[in-house]
Amino acid sequence: MNAAIETLLAHRSIRQFESTPISDEQRCTIIDCARAASTSSFIQCTSIIRVVDKEKRRLLAEYAGNQAYVMEAAEFFVFCADYHRHLQIKPDAKVGFAEQMLIGAVDAALMAQNALVAAESMGLGGVYIGGLRNNPDKVSDLLKLPEQVVPLFGLCLGYPAQDPEVKPRLPVDLMVHEDKYQPMDKTRLAEYDDVVREYYSTRTGGNRTMSWSEQISATLDKESRPFMRDFLHSKGFAVK
Amino acid sequence: MNAAIETLLAHRSIRQFESTPISDEQRCTIIDCARAASTSSFIQCTSIIRVVDKEKRRLLAEYAGNQAYVMEAAEFFVFCADYHRHLQIKPDAKVGFAEQMLIGAVDAALMAQNALVAAESMGLGGVYIGGLRNNPDKVSDLLKLPEQVVPLFGLCLGYPAQDPEVKPRLPVDLMVHEDKYQPMDKTRLAEYDDVVREYYSTRTGGNRTMSWSEQISATLDKESRPFMRDFLHSKGFAVK
Repeated sequence: MNAAIETLLAHRSIRQFESTPISDEQRCTIIDCARAASTSSFIQCTSIIRVVDKEKRRLLAEYAGNQAYVMEAAEFFVFCADYHRHLQIKPDAKVGFAEQMLIGAVDAALMAQNALVAAESMGLGGVYIGGLRNNPDKVSDLLKLPEQVVPLFGLCLGYPAQDPEVKPRLPVDLMVHEDKYQPMDKTRLAEYDDVVREYYSTRTGGNRTMSWSEQISATLDKESRPFMRDFLHSKGFAVK
Repeated sequence: MNAAIETLLAHRSIRQFESTPISDEQRCTIIDCARAASTSSFIQCTSIIRVVDKEKRRLLAEYAGNQAYVMEAAEFFVFCADYHRHLQIKPDAKVGFAEQMLIGAVDAALMAQNALVAAESMGLGGVYIGGLRNNPDKVSDLLKLPEQVVPLFGLCLGYPAQDPEVKPRLPVDLMVHEDKYQPMDKTRLAEYDDVVREYYSTRTGGNRTMSWSEQISATLDKESRPFMRDFLHSKGFAVK
């Protein structure tokens, strides 16, 4: 097993950070790794907003649902799907397609994952902040995002001040299908549910014992940010 | 610079492959690395279809716009956003939100990028196949994807039979903003356009000399898969 693979397999989200800064050199390398990711048809439709301003960090932490680590992380990046760049080159560019929303989300995530892996390979840790999408309009206003720019998620990076366990993922045979989609094996799911129950139990000293099925049932009992469709449309996204 | 970062910075898409297979052990490691990626609120809404069947590969290559490497690669994975898994656990799960489409695209891309980076760290190469979205309905039918499963992109992996240059990306200062979105610096864009022109010229022996601005202007002069919105809706996605 090589060093890159060790880094990938050792991933866990870090939500407590030391106050040690990330050096300029490290940050530049992390960003260069992000930029090296694939981009659909060379469209390069991602922008990264590096948030340094403390008051903006405080507000973003609040918008994300009071996630203090957005303030405390050494670096905080907001990854955006961005076709405004292209409109500055070609004002009559055909934008606003649902397809471009997909490309934007996929390309931004490819870049972000390279950034996180690069950081983790340096001994740093991080966590994605999807909670920014709780208040996409406020995030957009705060960061002065123009039309055709959509904030997708944040990424906290810093030196870890915690050492959590790796969280057990769905087993391979529930996630990978061969040649065609296969229905879920309920026995394997039950086994996985036990693994997740055990993981939470160990982590919380027995206070929490939720299975994966229970957790996702609770999550999907509620609407999932039902305002997002209108927000995307308000930014000129995914309307066609 | 550590080995993981060297791998990330050395990325270029590989579209010609040796016939050497990827071993089972390598494939399992690649998939394990994919599974280790972050997932939004532990939702785990990605499915990977590993396509082994030669006829299915041939058809997918055709659907993607006659990209022969879809057939020739040692492995071909189709990454899907998948809430059908959750519906098997909770038949009345609240699904179909645009937000869930974003989560699906982001999570699938995080996983896929881990897979590609793992593969590249082993000396393999690969390329993403967004062209599957030329014919999302045909891809879905071929792979028997049920409702609430959307094929996002493919990933070819194998031993490289070519050694292309690293493609020059947008410079940092056109991609990374500080604290707020900044308008594009046209001088920097012109410099980058020259870099891209030179890259294509070298690569094609002077036959192609397109700048980035010219390339994206041509791309965005056309509609971007305008059928995608209806396709997503037909799969029960992004309707709310």
